[in-house]
Parts: sequence; structure tokens; C-alpha cells
Amino acid sequence: MPSPELPGGFRFAGVACGIKPSGKPDISLIVADMPLVAAAVYTTNQVVAAPVQLCRQRTPAENIRGVVTNSGNANACTGQQGFENANEMCRLLAKRIVADPSQILVMSTGVIGKHLPMDRVQTGVDIAFNKLGSSLDHFHAAADAILTTDKARKIEIASFEIDGEPVRVAAMAKGAGMIAPNMATMLGVIFTDAALNPEQAQQLLGQIAAVTFNCVSVDGHTSTNDTLLLLASGSSGVHIGPSSEAVFAGHLQSVCRRLARQLVADGEGATHVIEIRVSGAQSDHDAETIARVIGASPLVKTAITGGDPNWGRIVSAAGYAGPKIQPEKTCLSVLGTEIYRDGAPISYDAKTLSGAMKAATDVILEIRVGDGNGAATQWASDLTVEYVRFNSEYTT
Amino acid sequence: MPSPELPGGFRFAGVACGIKPSGKPDISLIVADMPLVAAAVYTTNQVVAAPVQLCRQRTPAENIRGVVTNSGNANACTGQQGFENANEMCRLLAKRIVADPSQILVMSTGVIGKHLPMDRVQTGVDIAFNKLGSSLDHFHAAADAILTTDKARKIEIASFEIDGEPVRVAAMAKGAGMIAPNMATMLGVIFTDAALNPEQAQQLLGQIAAVTFNCVSVDGHTSTNDTLLLLASGSSGVHIGPSSEAVFAGHLQSVCRRLARQLVADGEGATHVIEIRVSGAQSDHDAETIARVIGASPLVKTAITGGDPNWGRIVSAAGYAGPKIQPEKTCLSVLGTEIYRDGAPISYDAKTLSGAMKAATDVILEIRVGDGNGAATQWASDLTVEYVRFNSEYTT
Repeated sequence: MPSPELPGGFRFAGVACGIKPSGKPDISLIVADMPLVAAAVYTTNQVVAAPVQLCRQRTPAENIRGVVTNSGNANACTGQQGFENANEMCRLLAKRIVADPSQILVMSTGVIGKHLPMDRVQTGVDIAFNKLGSSLDHFHAAADAILTTDKARKIEIASFEIDGEPVRVAAMAKGAGMIAPNMATMLGVIFTDAALNPEQAQQLLGQIAAVTFNCVSVDGHTSTNDTLLLLASGSSGVHIGPSSEAVFAGHLQSVCRRLARQLVADGEGATHVIEIRVSGAQSDHDAETIARVIGASPLVKTAITGGDPNWGRIVSAAGYAGPKIQPEKTCLSVLGTEIYRDGAPISYDAKTLSGAMKAATDVILEIRVGDGNGAATQWASDLTVEYVRFNSEYTT
Repeated sequence: MPSPELPGGFRFAGVACGIKPSGKPDISLIVADMPLVAAAVYTTNQVVAAPVQLCRQRTPAENIRGVVTNSGNANACTGQQGFENANEMCRLLAKRIVADPSQILVMSTGVIGKHLPMDRVQTGVDIAFNKLGSSLDHFHAAADAILTTDKARKIEIASFEIDGEPVRVAAMAKGAGMIAPNMATMLGVIFTDAALNPEQAQQLLGQIAAVTFNCVSVDGHTSTNDTLLLLASGSSGVHIGPSSEAVFAGHLQSVCRRLARQLVADGEGATHVIEIRVSGAQSDHDAETIARVIGASPLVKTAITGGDPNWGRIVSAAGYAGPKIQPEKTCLSVLGTEIYRDGAPISYDAKTLSGAMKAATDVILEIRVGDGNGAATQWASDLTVEYVRFNSEYTT
């Protein structure tokens, strides 16, 4: 019996097959008994991993039967052999569930530039196939097996009504490092038992990714493997039509926003989520650029780590971001306390504000850069000693 | 008597007047008895400090008599009061050397957003005026008084012949943090006893800054105060004309390149200079963008810190930099060892290369991104635990 909270139509498994030296789970399966509608958005990096090259040819689709994911090895920068290995991963799963390989999607995450140990992958797919199930435990196992340097499992589950009928959405993601999605996040899968058509699914996913996963950054480094999938089983029998699409999209967006925030909160070494709200820019695109540059500045990130309301670093980052700003009309609030108004600092209780910043899990920066109508919000991790220690000790 | 190595026509002083709580030198004077030709390039940040706003109105010029610089306070984001304080600094020096305030340039560096303690500045200018001299010790004192978080004095001195006559160049700079110049570096002054006209000085300085100071980055954060001055006394009697300009420019460029490298080597917490040579791009501008993005990636920086030839991080940074690249023709060498060719990794002795990277002060990355003719070189600091510790503990 499927868990009441999860969307129907999916079975999950996650196992360890030795791709990761740590022995942690590294093969994740998602299987549908009936064909799924699938949409996807992918990395905009010009250097793209083999599984991304393969999946790009297959989505959007209305006949997807499964997704096989490995962690511990990104299968990126691996040339023709890598492409063949990605294809082979699809064949392995297709064979077990009696489907065509073109009905399988594949994702990889982990170290770049090493060939997959295909014997282990085969063993992993075989073991995982025998453990498939639709319970919450099965879902957790699949979500755990896509993680790499993440400290915690990243899932969201929601249910709501459309036209009086229950619909369910679940989602899983992996984050932690090389996170600055631009069209999609590192790896993420959203499940629903609503019925969507492929074009509709693709359009919804693109819109929602733009305001959720594409707005987060851990380290500004856009990965070679970013893939975000939306899988719709239709098993609820609820068709999303013109009258219900906005409500459905709203729920989907909340799920994605919460999951995107989890990526930032569990950014490598992160101790704070920095929420950067820019307004008053000349366009939304300008506001987004400014928010991204503020969130990428190591001087801003370390100030937040230290609980320092260092408006000089924040305002000067807005000044070099590129888009036109009005320095004499620029204002800044941190956690609701205004500390800079119309181009000049104003007095505030620095000690109290610093204490509040240190205690907060989310530090909200609101910067108004002029009298334009452009606005955007981005989320970024702070930068800690642990981030540097981890990434200078990580072995290729 | 001027030191034989320094350009003639300049006197220097550096003293402590209490702007810095540490008691370290914080007022620096440069004075010429005869008017100087002066050129300057400034920050491209839209948020600019008061001294930059003031100096922009005064350069290029042919009647500059002195430069007053304080460290410990950037006089940035300080509104009308800050502008008046910058003017007052000029008046204080002008009065002592019997010049017009419009003949004085002013620079500030340090904490953003605090008003200068003008009583201390006045005391500092008075004390420094009484210590002016043309010896190497005086030059060192002036160079020390512009430093902030720098670990070491940054100077270069060179002499060479133009048309058989001796000409001298000296330069000082401050670096360490908020370093990603874009038109100029944080603070730098180049002195020469060659005779230049203002337009010639301005043109030379712009060209040289573009290939030296504008090619370095510590943290990607373009400061509000970047100023690079070129001061020519003409006391050597050697006029730089069309026949000698290229030779003179070559010497000036070497001095600036060495000084720019010092900025990176002494970047906050830095343990390596990363030299990023990009070739095969579709234009020099594309190559520069790619080199900048590689040098700004925290994943690349931390890999260099750890002595890890992690080509996946380097190649993927080139892939998201923006300019068109040819992934299947991309090649990478680290310290002369090729580790990635035509889009795929090649075997090499990772242990030996890692050892060489750890031992090197300068780690050279050569990345060819296609078969275009665009090329550029950039220098960046690596990213260490010390950088993060320092910047999360630095108090506003």
C-alpha cells in the first residue's frame, strides 16, 4: 500500500553498491508501473555531463517508466565512454522493468571526470530493483541515495485539493556543493499523482524553477549535472486544466521553494541562509543580477557568518554588480532593522542587531537600490571556515 | 639628497595619528616642490568614496603638488560630510606646502561608512609635513602608512635608460582585501622622474592598468575606493617622445605587473598566487571573462589551496563563465603538466603534481577553450580558512 501522503503511481529504492568509498547509498531508483509524463530543466553550463546530454533528448515525454540515479560519480567530462555508460544505466533498469531504454531517465552526481564502475552499477540496479516499494521508507531510501556531501536528506511532501479532489506532490533533491543553478538545480525530482500533459508539465516546471531553484546559490559554481525532473503519474485521476492550473502551480511552487531553501541551508559548511531581497531596480532582471552578486561576495558571506551588519560590503557589492543603481537613494535593512538610508548610514543598535543575526537561521537583507520597479529575491549560503576546510581537503 | 634609486622630485612621509586603533601609521604624504603631471584611473563601482569623487575632477593634470592619503577609514558612503572632509584633507596639506587645494589629490582606505576624525587627520598632516624627506626610509614610511590588512609593504623600484639617459620609476600600493580592480587597483601610486604630458600619462596609465592591476583579484569584490595614480616630476630632464614611449611603457608595465602580483600574493589569508592563462577563446574579452570566473570560483580557489589538480572544477567554471567555448576541444595544464585534453581527462602522476602545487608560490593554470585566437591572463589569490576567519571576525 502506498503511504497516504505520497503521490500514487511510483515505487522507490535506494541502495549502496560501492561507487562511494564510504559505503553510503549510491544507487537510487524511481519506477512507475504505468507511463509517466515527464518534464525537465537542465544545467546551462556548456560543459555538460553524459546523463544530461542523454536526458535532454528524452524530455518532455509522456511515456517515461523510470529514473536511475547514481551518486559518488558525476559521469561528467567522460567523453564517449561516459555517454555509453549513461545509456547502459538506462538499459539495465529497462531490462528489469520490461521497458524500452528510451523510457528511462538517468542522473549522476559526484566526482567529475572518472568513469563509472559499471559492474557495481549493474549490481546496484539489480539489488535496488528487488527492494522497490511505495512506502515512505522506500521514498526516504531513494532520496538518501542521491546525496553526496549533503548533511541531511532533502524532501518535501504536500497534499491539497484540486476541484475538491485530493492531489499529492512529493519532491527530493541533493545539494551541498557546486550549487548555483541556472535553469535547474543540482539534482531534484518532483512527483505528483495529478495528470498533466507533457507541454503543460514543461511550461510549469520552467516557470517554477525560475523563481525557486534558480534563485539559490551555495558557491556560485554552476554544475555540469544540474537536472530537475517533474514526474506526473496521473494516478489521482485529477486532470489539471486551465481552471485549476494556477492553484496547482502555487502548491508546486511552495514545495519547490521549501526544497530550494533546504539546499542553501545545507550548503557546505553553511551556518546561515542569506535571503537577499532587492527592490527599486530598473527591471526584475537587474534586481536578480544585483541579488546574485551580493549573495556571491565572499566579503558579504563572511560578514553574515560573523553576525556583522556590515552594510559597506553589501552596498558596495550592489555598486559593482553591473546594473544601474541610484547610490543616493539606496537603503538597506537587515532583519527588519534599517541601517542605511538614502546613501548614508543611520544610527541603530549594532550590538542587538548582531546578536539577532547570530541567532537567526535566515538573515534577511532588504536593499532598495533606487526608485525603479524591478525586484527579486535570492537565497545564498554564508561562507565558513568549514566550507574552505572541506573543499581544500576534498580529493579528486 | 634623494636616494639614488628613487625618482627625483618627490618627498615622502608616513606617520601614525590615531585613525587606526592599532596605532599603526595611517597618514601618508607625497609632496613635490615643482608641479607634477598626474594621471589616474579609478574604481568602476557605482558606489564611490568621497576622495574618488574629488580626484576624478582633478586628473589628468599638470600642476599637482601633493597627495595626502589616510588608511584606517575609507571615507566611503559618508555623504556630503565625507566630501567636505576629503576637501579639508586637501586644504590641510595645501596650506602647509603653500599650494592651492586644487593642486592636491587625496586617497582613503579602510572601514566604509564612518566619518573621518578630522582633528586627528590635521595632527597627522602637521606631524608628517615636518618629517618629509626624499630618502628610501621616507619612501618606505609613506608606503607603510597606506596599508590596512596587508601583511607586508608593497613597493617596486626600477631604473633604466631612455635615449642613453637614466630614468627612474618607483611605485607603492596597498592590497589585501576587497580587491578586484576594474579600471584600477585599491590604492597605488607610480612615481617617475621622466617628463610626460598629462594626456600621454593618462593614456599610458590606462593601457598599463588594463593588463596589470585590472587582471588581479583577491575576492572578486570591486572596492569603492580604487585609485591608481601616475605622478611624473620630469626632474630627470628626459622627455618621453614618440620614439621612446614604447620602451618607457614596457618598463612601467613590468613595475606595475610585479606590484599587482604582490597584491595577490598578500591577499587576505592567501597561500598561493593562481595565474590563469586562457587561450583559444573567440576574443581576448571572452578569454578575460573566462579567466576571471575561474579565478573567482571558491571551488577552484580551495582546490589550489589544497594542492589538488581538480580539473573538473576548473573546466566546469570555464563552462558556466558565459562566453562560448568548445568543450570537446578544451585542454588544461597545471604547472606545465597536461591533465585534460580535447574534453577528456588524461593520465598523469597526480601525487607528483599535487606535491608541486603545494610547494609552488605561483600555480599556473593554462586552459585552452577552443581554436579561437582570444587569450588573456589573470591572477587570483587562493581561498583559505584564514581568509574566512579573518573576514568573519573583522568588525565594522
